[in-house]
Amino acid sequence: MNVQQLIQQIKLKKNVLCVGLDSDIDKIPAHLNKNQFLFNKEIIDATKAYCVAYKLNTAFYESVGTTGWQALEDTINYIPDTHYIIADAKRGDIGNTAIHYAKTFFETMSFDAVTVSPYMGLDTIQPFLNYPNKVAIVLALTSNMGSNDFQQLTLKTALNDKKLFEEVISQTKKLGDKNKLMFVVGATKIEHLKGIRSLLPNHFLLIPGVGTQGGDLDEILKIALTKDGGILVNVSRDIIFNDNSTNFAQFASIKAME
Amino acid sequence: MNVQQLIQQIKLKKNVLCVGLDSDIDKIPAHLNKNQFLFNKEIIDATKAYCVAYKLNTAFYESVGTTGWQALEDTINYIPDTHYIIADAKRGDIGNTAIHYAKTFFETMSFDAVTVSPYMGLDTIQPFLNYPNKVAIVLALTSNMGSNDFQQLTLKTALNDKKLFEEVISQTKKLGDKNKLMFVVGATKIEHLKGIRSLLPNHFLLIPGVGTQGGDLDEILKIALTKDGGILVNVSRDIIFNDNSTNFAQFASIKAME
Repeated sequence: MNVQQLIQQIKLKKNVLCVGLDSDIDKIPAHLNKNQFLFNKEIIDATKAYCVAYKLNTAFYESVGTTGWQALEDTINYIPDTHYIIADAKRGDIGNTAIHYAKTFFETMSFDAVTVSPYMGLDTIQPFLNYPNKVAIVLALTSNMGSNDFQQLTLKTALNDKKLFEEVISQTKKLGDKNKLMFVVGATKIEHLKGIRSLLPNHFLLIPGVGTQGGDLDEILKIALTKDGGILVNVSRDIIFNDNSTNFAQFASIKAME
Repeated sequence: MNVQQLIQQIKLKKNVLCVGLDSDIDKIPAHLNKNQFLFNKEIIDATKAYCVAYKLNTAFYESVGTTGWQALEDTINYIPDTHYIIADAKRGDIGNTAIHYAKTFFETMSFDAVTVSPYMGLDTIQPFLNYPNKVAIVLALTSNMGSNDFQQLTLKTALNDKKLFEEVISQTKKLGDKNKLMFVVGATKIEHLKGIRSLLPNHFLLIPGVGTQGGDLDEILKIALTKDGGILVNVSRDIIFNDNSTNFAQFASIKAME
């Protein structure tokens, strides 16, 4: 699915929810016997009517080994083509290596987008942009406390007391329009969201941190929605780990509907 | 293997070579039929006398899918316990997720160290430091052109025109001593190496970029060697892809010996 098709789905369903399949084997209901794919399958069936995207955080699959990697592949293949599929992998490496990461997520697996870390520079993002209809989602301002450590430092060389994350946005957005690039902005960073939207009037923002991490959904929608939708609000634990019984999927469904 | 044991091996063998197993299936000699583990096995047998460490860049295995992930596991198990084993994975994510990446590389697989990206801040590095005898290798100043884009920007808030990568080093080194933390410094950044060594008199530096990327080995040794060794110089393509015939391992051996 490309960004234009995502926009169609958002308009059709009138929602911007992305369900995060952070399917930690230690939190999956016991009757599923740590089977990540079976868990994901039920969550997808229960939530697909209420969301437009799924985000799979690779850490929760890699930590299980080859079985986890297989569950990741099976899950992507199971997600209906009416839904946008994001690999939350936060990769970032020199060009020759980044080509292989792009291949991993766009060829070996058929994700629509992958999250990318900008620390190593623009030449490490470029290889992800060489796929028509695929998207690189670049970390800008993240939801965790540690985003103060480096992302929010003020730069000397830039005009107007620009912060590092603002320079990341300014430089990176030159690489591609809304059909090629999105940016991660944590839901806990409401005070910066207006400024970020003015830097990026057209690009989609992937906004994690609503729910467990404490972001305020109403405020986010007020500030960041565009005529295309323009945001994907990710909720993971608050939807998928709401209940630990055999009814877990029904609870996930109710939570996603809310 | 922990850092003290690595230092013993360096003193015993009088070398600081790390062989990078960037085993791209499209560059493996044809007779091996794209089998990454068989390739690595022969390279390891041919080079183990001349190096103290192996670095496996996860991109080259992930891009192959579950087969690649299996080859990664088989390779780690094959590397003798006289050699330090690094996952070059450049992971970086919020605490809850970072815990799972640490589990991936330190429990599910038994790497001695993993490379970590600092963009998201100190709380994303901490989970890797909770393993006794394991090491996080934090990206500081990388060898690629793109390192100019963000890593080398000057910060306003810091004294003495500190650059971002220097702030990353200053803040991160507070988290752990040389037994817990190393830093990546590209071999192409000779002009910064002396300053980095004075910021980090005791920590190991992992130095990629000698060979294909053009770093000068003699200069690096002169500036960065310490009484412990204190550096691991990584060479990948220049050793492992020197020859495309059935004699590839013999050529790798000669190159590693040099």
